[in-house]
Amino acid sequence: MSDKARLYLFPVPMGDSPVDKVLPPVNTAIIREVKYFVVENLRSARRFLKSCDRNIDIDSLSMVELNEHTDLADVAAMLDPMARGHSIGVISEAGCPAVADPGADLVAVAQARGYEVVPLVGPSSILLSLMGSGFNGQNFAFNGYLPVDAKARGAKLKEMIRRITAEHQTQIFIETPYRNNRLIADLAERLPGDIRLCVASDITCSRQSIITRPLSQWKKTPYNYDKIPTIFLLYSQT
Amino acid sequence: MSDKARLYLFPVPMGDSPVDKVLPPVNTAIIREVKYFVVENLRSARRFLKSCDRNIDIDSLSMVELNEHTDLADVAAMLDPMARGHSIGVISEAGCPAVADPGADLVAVAQARGYEVVPLVGPSSILLSLMGSGFNGQNFAFNGYLPVDAKARGAKLKEMIRRITAEHQTQIFIETPYRNNRLIADLAERLPGDIRLCVASDITCSRQSIITRPLSQWKKTPYNYDKIPTIFLLYSQT
Repeated sequence: MSDKARLYLFPVPMGDSPVDKVLPPVNTAIIREVKYFVVENLRSARRFLKSCDRNIDIDSLSMVELNEHTDLADVAAMLDPMARGHSIGVISEAGCPAVADPGADLVAVAQARGYEVVPLVGPSSILLSLMGSGFNGQNFAFNGYLPVDAKARGAKLKEMIRRITAEHQTQIFIETPYRNNRLIADLAERLPGDIRLCVASDITCSRQSIITRPLSQWKKTPYNYDKIPTIFLLYSQT
Repeated sequence: MSDKARLYLFPVPMGDSPVDKVLPPVNTAIIREVKYFVVENLRSARRFLKSCDRNIDIDSLSMVELNEHTDLADVAAMLDPMARGHSIGVISEAGCPAVADPGADLVAVAQARGYEVVPLVGPSSILLSLMGSGFNGQNFAFNGYLPVDAKARGAKLKEMIRRITAEHQTQIFIETPYRNNRLIADLAERLPGDIRLCVASDITCSRQSIITRPLSQWKKTPYNYDKIPTIFLLYSQT
Protein backbone atom coordinates (compact mmCIF):
# COMPACT_ATOMS: atom_id res chain seq x y z
CA MET A 1 0.00 0.00 0.00
CA SER A 2 1.37 3.39 -0.97
CA ASP A 3 0.89 5.95 1.75
CA LYS A 4 0.30 8.51 -0.99
CA ALA A 5 -3.18 7.18 -1.79
CA ARG A 6 -5.78 9.68 -0.63
CA LEU A 7 -9.56 9.90 -0.61
CA TYR A 8 -10.36 13.33 -2.08
CA LEU A 9 -13.83 14.80 -1.50
CA PHE A 10 -14.67 17.10 -4.43
CA PRO A 11 -17.55 19.56 -3.96
CA VAL A 12 -19.70 20.21 -7.03
CA PRO A 13 -21.47 23.46 -8.07
CA MET A 14 -25.19 23.58 -7.29
CA GLY A 15 -27.70 24.31 -10.06
CA ASP A 16 -26.53 26.79 -12.69
CA SER A 17 -23.54 28.26 -10.81
CA PRO A 18 -20.23 28.26 -12.73
CA VAL A 19 -17.13 26.45 -11.43
CA ASP A 20 -15.08 29.62 -10.89
CA LYS A 21 -17.79 31.11 -8.68
CA VAL A 22 -17.81 28.28 -6.16
CA LEU A 23 -14.60 26.19 -6.45
CA PRO A 24 -10.98 27.14 -5.74
CA PRO A 25 -8.52 26.60 -8.65
CA VAL A 26 -6.64 23.93 -6.67
CA ASN A 27 -9.66 21.59 -6.84
CA THR A 28 -9.46 21.48 -10.64
CA ALA A 29 -5.70 20.92 -10.54
CA ILE A 30 -6.13 17.93 -8.21
CA ILE A 31 -9.07 16.42 -10.11
CA ARG A 32 -6.92 16.15 -13.26
CA GLU A 33 -4.52 13.82 -11.42
CA VAL A 34 -7.18 11.40 -10.12
CA LYS A 35 -8.09 8.32 -12.18
CA TYR A 36 -10.53 6.51 -9.86
CA PHE A 37 -13.86 8.05 -8.85
CA VAL A 38 -16.83 7.12 -6.69
CA VAL A 39 -19.75 9.22 -7.90
CA GLU A 40 -23.36 9.75 -6.86
CA ASN A 41 -24.53 9.83 -10.49
CA LEU A 42 -22.47 8.87 -13.55
CA ARG A 43 -23.98 11.36 -15.96
CA SER A 44 -23.71 14.40 -13.68
CA ALA A 45 -20.17 13.40 -12.63
CA ARG A 46 -19.08 13.29 -16.29
CA ARG A 47 -20.65 16.71 -16.87
CA PHE A 48 -18.84 18.10 -13.81
CA LEU A 49 -15.46 16.68 -14.90
CA LYS A 50 -15.91 18.24 -18.36
CA SER A 51 -16.76 21.60 -16.76
CA CYS A 52 -13.49 21.43 -14.76
CA ASP A 53 -11.43 20.64 -17.86
CA ARG A 54 -13.02 20.16 -21.27
CA ASN A 55 -9.95 18.17 -22.44
CA ILE A 56 -10.27 15.56 -19.70
CA ASP A 57 -10.35 11.99 -21.12
CA ILE A 58 -13.46 10.65 -19.38
CA ASP A 59 -13.16 7.19 -20.97
CA SER A 60 -9.78 6.61 -19.33
CA LEU A 61 -11.27 7.06 -15.86
CA SER A 62 -12.72 4.39 -13.58
CA MET A 63 -16.10 5.40 -12.13
CA VAL A 64 -18.35 3.55 -9.68
CA GLU A 65 -21.77 4.78 -8.54
CA LEU A 66 -22.58 5.19 -4.84
CA ASN A 67 -26.08 6.45 -4.05
CA GLU A 68 -29.28 5.56 -2.21
CA HIS A 69 -29.65 2.40 -4.36
CA THR A 70 -26.21 1.05 -3.36
CA ASP A 71 -26.02 -1.93 -1.01
CA LEU A 72 -23.99 -0.85 2.03
CA ALA A 73 -22.12 -4.18 1.79
CA ASP A 74 -20.66 -3.03 -1.57
CA VAL A 75 -19.23 0.25 -0.28
CA ALA A 76 -16.00 -1.05 1.28
CA ALA A 77 -14.77 -2.69 -1.97
CA MET A 78 -14.97 0.68 -3.73
CA LEU A 79 -11.82 1.67 -1.83
CA ASP A 80 -9.79 -1.32 -3.06
CA PRO A 81 -7.82 0.73 -5.66
CA MET A 82 -6.30 2.63 -2.69
CA ALA A 83 -4.58 -0.60 -1.57
CA ARG A 84 -2.77 -0.52 -4.94
CA GLY A 85 -1.66 3.08 -4.33
CA HIS A 86 -4.37 4.89 -6.31
CA SER A 87 -6.11 7.98 -4.94
CA ILE A 88 -9.89 8.08 -5.24
CA GLY A 89 -12.12 11.11 -5.80
CA VAL A 90 -15.68 11.34 -4.46
CA ILE A 91 -18.15 13.42 -6.51
CA SER A 92 -21.70 14.17 -5.34
CA GLU A 93 -24.50 15.43 -7.53
CA ALA A 94 -24.29 18.92 -6.00
CA GLY A 95 -22.66 20.54 -2.98
CA CYS A 96 -20.23 18.91 -0.55
CA PRO A 97 -19.75 15.13 -0.48
CA ALA A 98 -20.55 13.35 2.80
CA VAL A 99 -22.74 16.20 4.12
CA ALA A 100 -26.34 15.08 3.61
CA ASP A 101 -25.31 12.39 1.11
CA PRO A 102 -24.17 8.72 1.02
CA GLY A 103 -20.46 9.57 0.67
CA ALA A 104 -20.17 9.56 4.47
CA ASP A 105 -20.26 5.74 4.52
CA LEU A 106 -17.30 5.59 2.14
CA VAL A 107 -15.35 8.10 4.25
CA ALA A 108 -16.06 6.02 7.36
CA VAL A 109 -14.50 2.94 5.70
CA ALA A 110 -11.47 5.00 4.57
CA GLN A 111 -11.01 6.24 8.15
CA ALA A 112 -11.32 2.70 9.52
CA ARG A 113 -8.57 1.55 7.10
CA GLY A 114 -6.31 4.44 8.11
CA TYR A 115 -6.29 6.22 4.74
CA GLU A 116 -5.77 9.96 4.46
CA VAL A 117 -9.07 11.77 3.74
CA VAL A 118 -8.83 15.19 2.06
CA PRO A 119 -12.03 17.28 1.96
CA LEU A 120 -11.81 20.19 -0.51
CA VAL A 121 -13.44 23.61 -0.24
CA GLY A 122 -16.71 24.21 -2.07
CA PRO A 123 -20.30 25.40 -1.80
CA SER A 124 -22.45 24.23 1.10
CA SER A 125 -25.95 25.67 1.11
CA ILE A 126 -26.15 24.91 4.86
CA LEU A 127 -23.05 26.95 5.70
CA LEU A 128 -23.79 29.79 3.26
CA SER A 129 -27.36 30.08 4.58
CA LEU A 130 -26.09 30.24 8.13
CA MET A 131 -23.59 33.00 7.20
CA GLY A 132 -26.31 35.02 5.47
CA SER A 133 -29.01 34.55 8.11
CA GLY A 134 -27.53 36.76 10.85
CA PHE A 135 -28.29 33.96 13.32
CA ASN A 136 -25.99 32.43 15.95
CA GLY A 137 -23.03 30.81 14.17
CA GLN A 138 -21.37 29.74 17.44
CA ASN A 139 -24.02 27.12 18.15
CA PHE A 140 -26.19 25.60 15.42
CA ALA A 141 -27.75 22.31 14.36
CA PHE A 142 -28.68 20.92 10.96
CA ASN A 143 -31.70 18.62 11.31
CA GLY A 144 -32.19 17.40 7.74
CA TYR A 145 -35.87 17.01 6.77
CA LEU A 146 -38.64 17.70 9.30
CA PRO A 147 -40.94 14.71 9.98
CA VAL A 148 -43.90 14.52 7.59
CA ASP A 149 -46.33 13.10 10.18
CA ALA A 150 -48.19 16.00 11.84
CA LYS A 151 -47.73 14.81 15.40
CA ALA A 152 -44.01 14.02 15.00
CA ARG A 153 -43.50 17.35 13.23
CA GLY A 154 -45.19 19.21 16.09
CA ALA A 155 -42.93 17.50 18.63
CA LYS A 156 -39.84 18.26 16.55
CA LEU A 157 -40.77 21.96 16.22
CA LYS A 158 -41.41 22.17 19.96
CA GLU A 159 -37.96 20.70 20.71
CA MET A 160 -36.29 23.03 18.19
CA ILE A 161 -37.92 26.07 19.86
CA ARG A 162 -36.70 24.77 23.22
CA ARG A 163 -33.12 24.52 21.92
CA ILE A 164 -33.35 28.02 20.40
CA THR A 165 -34.62 29.50 23.65
CA ALA A 166 -32.67 27.51 26.26
CA GLU A 167 -29.43 26.86 24.33
CA HIS A 168 -29.36 29.75 21.80
CA GLN A 169 -28.85 27.12 19.13
CA THR A 170 -29.78 28.09 15.54
CA GLN A 171 -31.99 25.38 14.00
CA ILE A 172 -31.50 24.55 10.31
CA PHE A 173 -33.65 22.19 8.22
CA ILE A 174 -34.90 21.43 4.71
CA GLU A 175 -38.17 20.47 3.02
CA THR A 176 -39.12 18.75 -0.23
CA PRO A 177 -39.11 21.80 -2.60
CA TYR A 178 -42.75 21.50 -3.72
CA ARG A 179 -43.80 21.83 -0.07
CA ASN A 180 -41.73 24.98 0.67
CA ASN A 181 -44.64 27.44 0.67
CA ARG A 182 -46.78 25.17 2.82
CA LEU A 183 -43.93 24.81 5.33
CA ILE A 184 -43.55 28.58 5.74
CA ALA A 185 -47.30 28.99 6.28
CA ASP A 186 -47.22 26.12 8.75
CA LEU A 187 -44.33 27.63 10.75
CA ALA A 188 -46.02 31.07 10.80
CA GLU A 189 -49.20 29.42 12.03
CA ARG A 190 -47.76 27.21 14.76
CA LEU A 191 -44.79 29.14 16.20
CA PRO A 192 -44.57 32.40 18.22
CA GLY A 193 -44.54 35.48 15.94
CA ASP A 194 -41.29 36.87 17.38
CA ILE A 195 -39.29 33.79 16.33
CA ARG A 196 -37.25 34.71 13.27
CA LEU A 197 -37.26 32.59 10.12
CA CYS A 198 -34.55 32.83 7.48
CA VAL A 199 -35.50 31.45 4.07
CA ALA A 200 -32.39 30.87 1.94
CA SER A 201 -33.19 29.73 -1.58
CA ASP A 202 -31.31 28.92 -4.79
CA ILE A 203 -28.01 29.41 -2.94
CA THR A 204 -25.04 30.35 -5.24
CA CYS A 205 -27.44 30.29 -8.22
CA SER A 206 -29.00 33.01 -10.35
CA ARG A 207 -32.12 33.54 -8.23
CA GLN A 208 -30.32 33.44 -4.86
CA SER A 209 -32.30 35.05 -2.05
CA ILE A 210 -31.62 35.01 1.72
CA ILE A 211 -34.33 36.72 3.76
CA THR A 212 -34.65 36.86 7.56
CA ARG A 213 -37.89 38.13 9.14
CA PRO A 214 -39.95 37.49 12.30
CA LEU A 215 -42.66 34.90 11.65
CA SER A 216 -45.27 37.62 12.31
CA GLN A 217 -43.95 39.37 9.18
CA TRP A 218 -43.72 36.20 7.06
CA LYS A 219 -47.40 35.74 7.87
CA LYS A 220 -48.30 39.09 6.25
CA THR A 221 -45.85 39.16 3.32
CA PRO A 222 -46.37 37.36 -0.01
CA TYR A 223 -43.67 34.83 -1.05
CA ASN A 224 -43.21 31.99 -3.51
CA TYR A 225 -40.48 29.37 -3.14
CA ASP A 226 -42.36 26.61 -4.92
CA LYS A 227 -39.95 23.94 -6.26
CA ILE A 228 -36.84 26.08 -5.56
CA PRO A 229 -34.15 24.35 -3.44
CA THR A 230 -34.43 26.12 -0.10
CA ILE A 231 -32.93 25.98 3.39
CA PHE A 232 -34.85 27.11 6.47
CA LEU A 233 -33.32 28.52 9.66
CA LEU A 234 -35.03 29.46 12.91
CA TYR A 235 -33.68 31.61 15.72
CA SER A 236 -34.80 34.16 18.27
CA GLN A 237 -32.89 37.31 19.07
CA THR A 238 -33.62 39.94 21.69
CA MET B 1 -30.84 54.15 -1.37
CA SER B 2 -29.55 52.11 -4.27
CA ASP B 3 -30.90 48.59 -4.32
CA LYS B 4 -27.53 47.50 -5.69
CA ALA B 5 -25.83 47.90 -2.30
CA ARG B 6 -24.95 44.47 -0.93
CA LEU B 7 -23.33 43.09 2.19
CA TYR B 8 -20.66 40.66 0.94
CA LEU B 9 -19.24 38.09 3.36
CA PHE B 10 -15.67 37.26 2.30
CA PRO B 11 -14.10 34.09 3.75
CA VAL B 12 -10.38 34.29 4.52
CA PRO B 13 -7.75 31.52 4.27
CA MET B 14 -6.81 29.90 7.57
CA GLY B 15 -3.16 29.77 8.69
CA ASP B 16 -0.65 29.28 5.88
CA SER B 17 -3.04 28.14 3.14
CA PRO B 18 -2.78 30.06 -0.15
CA VAL B 19 -5.75 31.95 -1.64
CA ASP B 20 -6.06 29.69 -4.72
CA LYS B 21 -6.35 26.59 -2.54
CA VAL B 22 -9.39 27.78 -0.60
CA LEU B 23 -11.13 30.66 -2.44
CA PRO B 24 -12.96 30.67 -5.79
CA PRO B 25 -11.68 33.22 -8.37
CA VAL B 26 -14.98 35.13 -8.25
CA ASN B 27 -14.30 36.20 -4.63
CA THR B 28 -11.18 38.09 -5.71
CA ALA B 29 -13.02 39.70 -8.63
CA ILE B 30 -15.77 40.98 -6.31
CA ILE B 31 -13.39 42.19 -3.60
CA ARG B 32 -11.68 44.53 -6.09
CA GLU B 33 -14.99 46.38 -6.60
CA VAL B 34 -15.75 46.95 -2.90
CA LYS B 35 -14.57 50.17 -1.23
CA TYR B 36 -16.08 49.84 2.26
CA PHE B 37 -15.08 47.08 4.65
CA VAL B 38 -15.97 45.92 8.14
CA VAL B 39 -13.06 43.82 9.37
CA GLU B 40 -12.28 41.76 12.46
CA ASN B 41 -8.68 43.00 12.54
CA LEU B 42 -7.23 45.85 10.46
CA ARG B 43 -3.76 44.41 10.01
CA SER B 44 -4.86 40.91 8.94
CA ALA B 45 -7.54 42.36 6.63
CA ARG B 46 -4.91 44.50 4.86
CA ARG B 47 -2.70 41.42 4.49
CA PHE B 48 -5.62 39.42 3.06
CA LEU B 49 -6.56 42.15 0.55
CA LYS B 50 -2.93 42.31 -0.64
CA SER B 51 -2.88 38.51 -1.07
CA CYS B 52 -5.99 38.77 -3.28
CA ASP B 53 -4.47 41.50 -5.45
CA ARG B 54 -1.06 42.97 -4.72
CA ASN B 55 -1.96 46.12 -6.72
CA ILE B 56 -4.98 46.92 -4.55
CA ASP B 57 -4.86 50.51 -3.20
CA ILE B 58 -5.46 49.86 0.50
CA ASP B 59 -5.32 53.56 1.44
CA SER B 60 -8.31 54.35 -0.78
CA LEU B 61 -10.51 51.91 1.16
CA SER B 62 -12.67 52.63 4.18
CA MET B 63 -12.17 50.07 6.96
CA VAL B 64 -13.91 49.79 10.34
CA GLU B 65 -13.07 47.17 12.98
CA LEU B 66 -15.76 44.88 14.40
CA ASN B 67 -14.57 42.38 17.00
CA GLU B 68 -15.11 41.27 20.59
CA HIS B 69 -14.11 44.76 21.82
CA THR B 70 -16.80 46.51 19.76
CA ASP B 71 -19.83 47.97 21.55
CA LEU B 72 -22.93 46.31 20.07
CA ALA B 73 -24.55 49.77 19.95
CA ASP B 74 -21.93 50.81 17.36
CA VAL B 75 -22.59 47.93 14.94
CA ALA B 76 -25.68 49.32 13.16
CA ALA B 77 -23.93 52.55 12.07
CA MET B 78 -21.29 50.50 10.24
CA LEU B 79 -23.91 49.80 7.58
CA ASP B 80 -24.65 53.48 6.91
CA PRO B 81 -22.63 53.56 3.64
CA MET B 82 -25.20 51.12 2.22
CA ALA B 83 -27.88 53.83 2.51
CA ARG B 84 -25.73 55.86 0.09
CA GLY B 85 -25.58 52.94 -2.36
CA HIS B 86 -22.20 51.49 -1.37
CA SER B 87 -21.67 47.75 -0.95
CA ILE B 88 -19.80 46.63 2.16
CA GLY B 89 -17.45 43.66 2.53
CA VAL B 90 -17.03 41.75 5.79
CA ILE B 91 -13.60 40.20 6.43
CA SER B 92 -12.89 37.93 9.41
CA GLU B 93 -9.44 37.00 10.66
CA ALA B 94 -9.75 33.46 9.26
CA GLY B 95 -12.50 31.22 7.90
CA CYS B 96 -16.10 32.23 7.16
CA PRO B 97 -17.54 35.51 8.51
CA ALA B 98 -20.55 35.21 10.83
CA VAL B 99 -19.88 31.56 11.72
CA ALA B 100 -18.29 31.58 15.17
CA ASP B 101 -17.44 35.29 14.91
CA PRO B 102 -18.96 38.73 15.59
CA GLY B 103 -19.96 39.37 11.95
CA ALA B 104 -23.34 37.72 12.66
CA ASP B 105 -24.54 40.85 14.50
CA LEU B 106 -23.78 42.99 11.45
CA VAL B 107 -25.61 40.55 9.16
CA ALA B 108 -28.63 40.64 11.49
CA VAL B 109 -28.81 44.43 11.16
CA ALA B 110 -28.49 44.20 7.36
CA GLN B 111 -31.33 41.65 7.29
CA ALA B 112 -33.51 43.88 9.51
CA ARG B 113 -32.93 46.79 7.10
CA GLY B 114 -33.83 44.63 4.08
CA TYR B 115 -30.41 44.71 2.41
CA GLU B 116 -29.21 41.89 0.19
CA VAL B 117 -26.64 39.70 2.00
CA VAL B 118 -24.25 37.70 -0.20
CA PRO B 119 -22.17 35.00 1.55
CA LEU B 120 -19.25 33.79 -0.58
CA VAL B 121 -17.73 30.31 -0.70
CA GLY B 122 -14.61 29.63 1.35
CA PRO B 123 -12.96 27.38 3.93
CA SER B 124 -14.91 26.36 7.03
CA SER B 125 -13.01 24.06 9.36
CA ILE B 126 -16.35 22.91 10.80
CA LEU B 127 -17.73 21.79 7.44
CA LEU B 128 -14.44 20.32 6.15
CA SER B 129 -13.99 18.36 9.39
CA LEU B 130 -17.50 16.99 9.12
CA MET B 131 -16.89 15.91 5.49
CA GLY B 132 -13.64 14.18 6.45
CA SER B 133 -14.92 12.50 9.62
CA GLY B 134 -17.18 9.88 8.03
CA PHE B 135 -19.85 10.83 10.59
CA ASN B 136 -23.53 11.62 9.98
CA GLY B 137 -23.77 14.72 7.77
CA GLN B 138 -27.57 14.62 7.63
CA ASN B 139 -27.89 15.63 11.28
CA PHE B 140 -25.15 17.48 13.14
CA ALA B 141 -24.61 20.20 15.72
CA PHE B 142 -21.76 22.63 16.31
CA ASN B 143 -21.53 23.43 20.02
CA GLY B 144 -18.64 25.93 20.12
CA TYR B 145 -16.42 25.54 23.21
CA LEU B 146 -17.19 22.95 25.88
CA PRO B 147 -17.77 24.40 29.35
CA VAL B 148 -14.54 24.73 31.40
CA ASP B 149 -16.19 23.97 34.75
CA ALA B 150 -15.91 20.22 35.43
CA LYS B 151 -19.52 19.71 36.48
CA ALA B 152 -20.97 21.72 33.57
CA ARG B 153 -18.63 19.90 31.17
CA GLY B 154 -19.77 16.52 32.46
CA ALA B 155 -23.42 17.49 31.95
CA LYS B 156 -22.69 18.79 28.43
CA LEU B 157 -20.87 15.57 27.46
CA LYS B 158 -23.72 13.47 28.83
CA GLU B 159 -26.26 15.42 26.77
CA MET B 160 -24.09 15.16 23.64
CA ILE B 161 -23.87 11.38 24.05
CA ARG B 162 -27.65 11.30 24.45
CA ARG B 163 -28.11 13.21 21.18
CA ILE B 164 -25.63 10.94 19.39
CA THR B 165 -27.42 7.82 20.60
CA ALA B 166 -31.08 8.88 20.48
CA GLU B 167 -30.99 11.32 17.53
CA HIS B 168 -27.95 10.09 15.53
CA GLN B 169 -26.70 13.68 15.64
CA THR B 170 -22.96 14.22 15.10
CA GLN B 171 -21.57 16.50 17.84
CA ILE B 172 -18.89 19.02 16.88
CA PHE B 173 -16.95 21.28 19.28
CA ILE B 174 -13.69 23.12 19.82
CA GLU B 175 -11.18 23.67 22.62
CA THR B 176 -8.56 26.29 23.42
CA PRO B 177 -5.58 24.87 21.44
CA TYR B 178 -3.19 24.49 24.38
CA ARG B 179 -5.76 22.20 26.04
CA ASN B 180 -6.28 19.90 23.01
CA ASN B 181 -4.28 16.94 24.36
CA ARG B 182 -5.92 17.16 27.77
CA LEU B 183 -9.37 17.19 26.13
CA ILE B 184 -8.70 14.00 24.16
CA ALA B 185 -7.45 12.23 27.31
CA ASP B 186 -10.50 13.51 29.18
CA LEU B 187 -12.94 12.24 26.50
CA ALA B 188 -11.20 8.83 26.39
CA GLU B 189 -11.42 8.63 30.18
CA ARG B 190 -15.06 9.67 30.63
CA LEU B 191 -16.92 8.33 27.58
CA PRO B 192 -17.71 4.78 26.37
CA GLY B 193 -14.81 3.28 24.37
CA ASP B 194 -16.97 2.47 21.33
CA ILE B 195 -17.87 6.15 20.78
CA ARG B 196 -15.82 7.42 17.86
CA LEU B 197 -13.80 10.63 18.06
CA CYS B 198 -12.61 12.49 14.97
CA VAL B 199 -9.73 14.91 15.58
CA ALA B 200 -9.40 17.34 12.66
CA SER B 201 -6.42 19.64 12.99
CA ASP B 202 -4.73 22.39 10.97
CA ILE B 203 -7.53 22.16 8.39
CA THR B 204 -6.53 23.38 4.84
CA CYS B 205 -2.99 24.04 6.17
CA SER B 206 0.32 22.26 5.72
CA ARG B 207 0.00 19.88 8.69
CA GLN B 208 -3.66 18.98 8.04
CA SER B 209 -4.73 15.72 9.68
CA ILE B 210 -8.23 14.25 10.06
CA ILE B 211 -8.31 11.04 12.08
CA THR B 212 -11.36 9.07 13.25
CA ARG B 213 -10.96 6.27 15.81
CA PRO B 214 -12.99 4.71 18.62
CA LEU B 215 -12.13 6.32 21.97
CA SER B 216 -10.75 2.94 23.11
CA GLN B 217 -8.06 3.34 20.41
CA TRP B 218 -7.37 7.01 21.14
CA LYS B 219 -6.65 5.88 24.71
CA LYS B 220 -3.86 3.54 23.53
CA THR B 221 -2.35 5.60 20.68
CA PRO B 222 0.13 8.47 21.12
CA TYR B 223 -0.89 11.89 19.72
CA ASN B 224 0.11 15.52 20.02
CA TYR B 225 -2.17 18.38 18.97
CA ASP B 226 -0.74 20.91 21.40
CA LYS B 227 -1.43 24.51 20.25
CA ILE B 228 -2.65 23.38 16.79
CA PRO B 229 -6.12 24.68 15.81
CA THR B 230 -8.30 21.59 16.06
CA ILE B 231 -11.94 20.57 15.73
CA PHE B 232 -13.43 17.61 17.61
CA LEU B 233 -16.33 15.47 16.45
CA LEU B 234 -18.10 12.65 18.30
CA TYR B 235 -20.37 9.98 16.85
CA SER B 236 -21.28 6.35 17.26
CA GLN B 237 -21.83 3.96 14.39
CA THR B 238 -22.95 0.38 14.45
